[in-house]
Amino acid sequence: MSPKITTELLKQLRQVMRNPKYVQEPVQAYIVPSGDAHQSEYIAPCDCRRAFISGFDGSAGTAIITEQHAAMWTDGRYFLQAANQMDNNWTLMKMGLKDTPTQEDWLVSVLPEGSKVGVDPFIIPADQWKRMSKVLRSAGHDLVPVKENLIDTIWTDCPQRPCKPLITLDLSYTGVSWRDKIVALRSKMAERKVLWFVVTALDEVAWLFNLRGSDVEYNPVFFAYAVIGMNTIRLFIDGDRMADPAVREHLQLDSTLEPEFKIQVMPYGSILTELQAVGASLSPKEKVWLSDKASYALTEAVPKAYQYLTPYTPICIAKAVKNALETEGMRRAHVKDAVALCELFNWLEKEVVPKGTVTEITAADKAEEFRSQQKDFVELSFATISSTGPNGAIIHYKPVPETNRTLSVNEIYLLDSGAQYKDGTTDVTRTMHFGTPSAYEKECFTYVLKGHIAVSAAIFPNGTKGHLLDSFARSALWDCGLDYLHGTGHGVGSFLNVHEGPCGISYKTFADEPLEAGMIVSDEPGYYEDGSFGIRIENVVLVIPAETKYNFKNRGSLTFEPLTLVPIQTKMIDVSLLTQKELNWVNDYHQKCREVIGAELERQGRLEALQWLIRETEPLIRVQ
Amino acid sequence: MSPKITTELLKQLRQVMRNPKYVQEPVQAYIVPSGDAHQSEYIAPCDCRRAFISGFDGSAGTAIITEQHAAMWTDGRYFLQAANQMDNNWTLMKMGLKDTPTQEDWLVSVLPEGSKVGVDPFIIPADQWKRMSKVLRSAGHDLVPVKENLIDTIWTDCPQRPCKPLITLDLSYTGVSWRDKIVALRSKMAERKVLWFVVTALDEVAWLFNLRGSDVEYNPVFFAYAVIGMNTIRLFIDGDRMADPAVREHLQLDSTLEPEFKIQVMPYGSILTELQAVGASLSPKEKVWLSDKASYALTEAVPKAYQYLTPYTPICIAKAVKNALETEGMRRAHVKDAVALCELFNWLEKEVVPKGTVTEITAADKAEEFRSQQKDFVELSFATISSTGPNGAIIHYKPVPETNRTLSVNEIYLLDSGAQYKDGTTDVTRTMHFGTPSAYEKECFTYVLKGHIAVSAAIFPNGTKGHLLDSFARSALWDCGLDYLHGTGHGVGSFLNVHEGPCGISYKTFADEPLEAGMIVSDEPGYYEDGSFGIRIENVVLVIPAETKYNFKNRGSLTFEPLTLVPIQTKMIDVSLLTQKELNWVNDYHQKCREVIGAELERQGRLEALQWLIRETEPLIRVQ
Repeated sequence: MSPKITTELLKQLRQVMRNPKYVQEPVQAYIVPSGDAHQSEYIAPCDCRRAFISGFDGSAGTAIITEQHAAMWTDGRYFLQAANQMDNNWTLMKMGLKDTPTQEDWLVSVLPEGSKVGVDPFIIPADQWKRMSKVLRSAGHDLVPVKENLIDTIWTDCPQRPCKPLITLDLSYTGVSWRDKIVALRSKMAERKVLWFVVTALDEVAWLFNLRGSDVEYNPVFFAYAVIGMNTIRLFIDGDRMADPAVREHLQLDSTLEPEFKIQVMPYGSILTELQAVGASLSPKEKVWLSDKASYALTEAVPKAYQYLTPYTPICIAKAVKNALETEGMRRAHVKDAVALCELFNWLEKEVVPKGTVTEITAADKAEEFRSQQKDFVELSFATISSTGPNGAIIHYKPVPETNRTLSVNEIYLLDSGAQYKDGTTDVTRTMHFGTPSAYEKECFTYVLKGHIAVSAAIFPNGTKGHLLDSFARSALWDCGLDYLHGTGHGVGSFLNVHEGPCGISYKTFADEPLEAGMIVSDEPGYYEDGSFGIRIENVVLVIPAETKYNFKNRGSLTFEPLTLVPIQTKMIDVSLLTQKELNWVNDYHQKCREVIGAELERQGRLEALQWLIRETEPLIRVQ
Repeated sequence: MSPKITTELLKQLRQVMRNPKYVQEPVQAYIVPSGDAHQSEYIAPCDCRRAFISGFDGSAGTAIITEQHAAMWTDGRYFLQAANQMDNNWTLMKMGLKDTPTQEDWLVSVLPEGSKVGVDPFIIPADQWKRMSKVLRSAGHDLVPVKENLIDTIWTDCPQRPCKPLITLDLSYTGVSWRDKIVALRSKMAERKVLWFVVTALDEVAWLFNLRGSDVEYNPVFFAYAVIGMNTIRLFIDGDRMADPAVREHLQLDSTLEPEFKIQVMPYGSILTELQAVGASLSPKEKVWLSDKASYALTEAVPKAYQYLTPYTPICIAKAVKNALETEGMRRAHVKDAVALCELFNWLEKEVVPKGTVTEITAADKAEEFRSQQKDFVELSFATISSTGPNGAIIHYKPVPETNRTLSVNEIYLLDSGAQYKDGTTDVTRTMHFGTPSAYEKECFTYVLKGHIAVSAAIFPNGTKGHLLDSFARSALWDCGLDYLHGTGHGVGSFLNVHEGPCGISYKTFADEPLEAGMIVSDEPGYYEDGSFGIRIENVVLVIPAETKYNFKNRGSLTFEPLTLVPIQTKMIDVSLLTQKELNWVNDYHQKCREVIGAELERQGRLEALQWLIRETEPLIRVQ
């Protein structure tokens, strides 16, 4: 992978940073965050401004360009990738390492006195604006909103904003109608005494209206905002998507409805002026509820006294707790996903070992092919990480022709992949060896497995936040002086984003919401040896009530049930390092894979994959 | 324990809340925090205003009195005690439970529109002021500083502020001179570009000047502030303590010193005006460094633009990492402390079993007697928790005549105690049974022990924060649906406060500083069965480097070394619940107790206690 040459682009950007056509006063620094106007993690090509200016196209990263410097902040998943993709105009700032300055501190250290730092107010979240602005101001600088996005001014071949057809989801998928969701939202609004709620996150708009889209690759969302009043519903959306009869019927646009359920459809671009009008109409004590991660532009449209900001919106919290129908859908999706992976791994074993003709890219394509044969398949849920040998150590690696390696019997293969089905979203990682793994590879794999089991089998009281479980996943690695530089788990949407809040399992967050029954998260510890191999074992798990011997103060307990049912390669396990409890966990898990996925493989007549499954789920035996 | 009758006091307080002599405008609510003007946890009798108004004298709690209500917020350690000590004028607000409102939310829910909420600006920390003020303001109320403390106006027999002689500590105890500490502090100030540093915490003043006092029971501190400039040192302290020749020599008050080490001694009460003068003298970009937990009064003395606030001061962080001489002192102190406890437990076994004549109070007194026989003993480091049977479930119980129980062979006995020695501070909890524990008691004890070992033996990377270890202590309890409602560990001072920041092991904090070698914390999981018994196993442990098999990215690893060397009662252990690793830990620990404390008992000629120690440290054997 050769880096993008950015010398000319940076020169152009520095020119517009001084150009009175775009900035009232010259800005000495310009911030290019990752996100779009909805603070999405995955973004449409037209919003990949940071990748355009730097070449680094990982899912997380912030670029800051000053007159002298260009710097990129990203986290441990992307250190190698960013270093490979950026030319030497760029300095890589490794977040999470002790000596890496924050963006604010770095700006203060490099800027001349009294500088202006520009940013697109639609792209920067309000909470981040506030934090940066405070630090910059106290050092004598100013954070200023630049209305026109400066990257867009130099991005001559910027693609169009997508505007694809919508999918309507009926009650058999969602369990709750959009009307009932609006009723529940309004009751939360009444509890907090707010009159308006602004839906800014794309997955929240999609969830609220039981609609899905495909404006952003991998995430079944569409570009829209919504503003919910106690008696009004405004949906800001472009294109002729509202002309689709199925959508019109789903939203009851042509029915005579009670006025409080009548949806007013407005142009996407009118959100700011509409919100300013709402803000101007308020009386004292009337409040507008926004996520504190909503854009600075929208937040500032409401006068400060009327803002009611919370880290997580009531939609975000309601969306995280899956109802019975959503859970059933997620189960079905994971069974289909496991069928596809059994087919894939069986095929890989046959192809790789005797022929050596499969590459990372062809393996990823084959995985997609098998998944697409399953019912209600929509698309992948993220770019498949298909990596062998040293590429496995690049945590969010995506194979491209320049880096594409052939799978062999001499290297560890790591596949992290998932799909969107109409009934659920999947995300699974398996690490395997098609030849004979070394003792060291098995040792590391077994530590990662022990961490995976420690989380998956953990029993913890109701009200426990996920970050309190993170160290369980690391303990076995820590004992030997090993670790991994990413969190252990993220929330997973129900035919929605593969990463969603407000819960997760990570040492990095403290503001996560407590885990509760019905939430779905991933459990994915790993170990990465730069230049050699990567190991990760990931299941999607459902939070379920746990029966305990004693029930302290009637608080109740929780644990996890794996939804992912794909064999974990026993060849990679050093059984002598497992406790009896861990050994039993592996055997019980494989027994369940065999039963549930075996039945489905049989039903689908995939008998060769069934044989593979049966082989791979033979019980482990401790050699005395 | 009968509750304090507060009807008349509350009536008087509500009168002064409206009295123009004390308040510019009537206040509809008055907040009485726990602390003193230094935000100390342990406070002098004259500062026990919350206990005076409510009767509840636990170490943590905030009272709020409105015209209609009186409410007390405290945490899980004190739920039972607070309920017992307060009359029914008071509502107990159980912090940490899901349905308990925050103080701000509660105020908003009960106050009439446009209320004023008063508080003594010297008692409330600036960060708390800020948070409360914001919430109250957004609900249309005002937080107002009330200069005269309203409790003091009705507290007719309020004791005098103590002003006791000082102790000087030479280099053999501190390892670093106060001059060198000032030099190090000024270098931190230069790094952050601040001109002034205000020392507000009493233990920070004591540590900085290598002085100790006894103004506050259990904490060897004295009432003082300090303001350190780049060329000046101002110490604000009352009484004739600076007339003591030893103190004058220690501080070199009469020497011809370089001016930047010349200490100006000023009256304690002049801090506010002096700080206001400093604030008024500043030019733009000149900063004053304060803890964000310093009082609102002192913080506001510095104009906002000149404030530099951090959660932990450089003194707090430097103080936490003990140097070689301090560590040696802590080791010596813990050896002496263990000798005293061996004597005590031997004596208890002899007295309790045959005679039944020892009470919680006489046991506590005897513990103090044995400790006071040890070299360099100064005082206890906190009120001894000597509790048997149901009293053990009151987490911070202190025996008083009304609650005093006789130790018996039928109940579990819990002793949490510690001392100040001139060379170190101790804090140790042991739980024991002098008869035959039930299977359930042993089961619970063993889970607590497993948690204790899980933390003590944990290996974790450099840079890990203590809160990430908290769940290790709970895992065995959680598996059976048990838990305890307090953190797992706190920092421990070196002949200083038994609780100190900035590190600890708790699910409650996120802003703790990473653990590093030389830090000293407690490891004290527990289990409490209301009305029956309490179990806690506490050692003070030193953070030390750990050797690991692999050394991931050269980060280095840490683990703990127990400084406390007192046998853990093996009679209480259900060996069948221990893993082999845990069993070995117990046996290794007891072997070390036997060697180190055995040698000291022998040296001190305490041969009966030595026999007890040898009996109690017999290796555990797994019964097949």
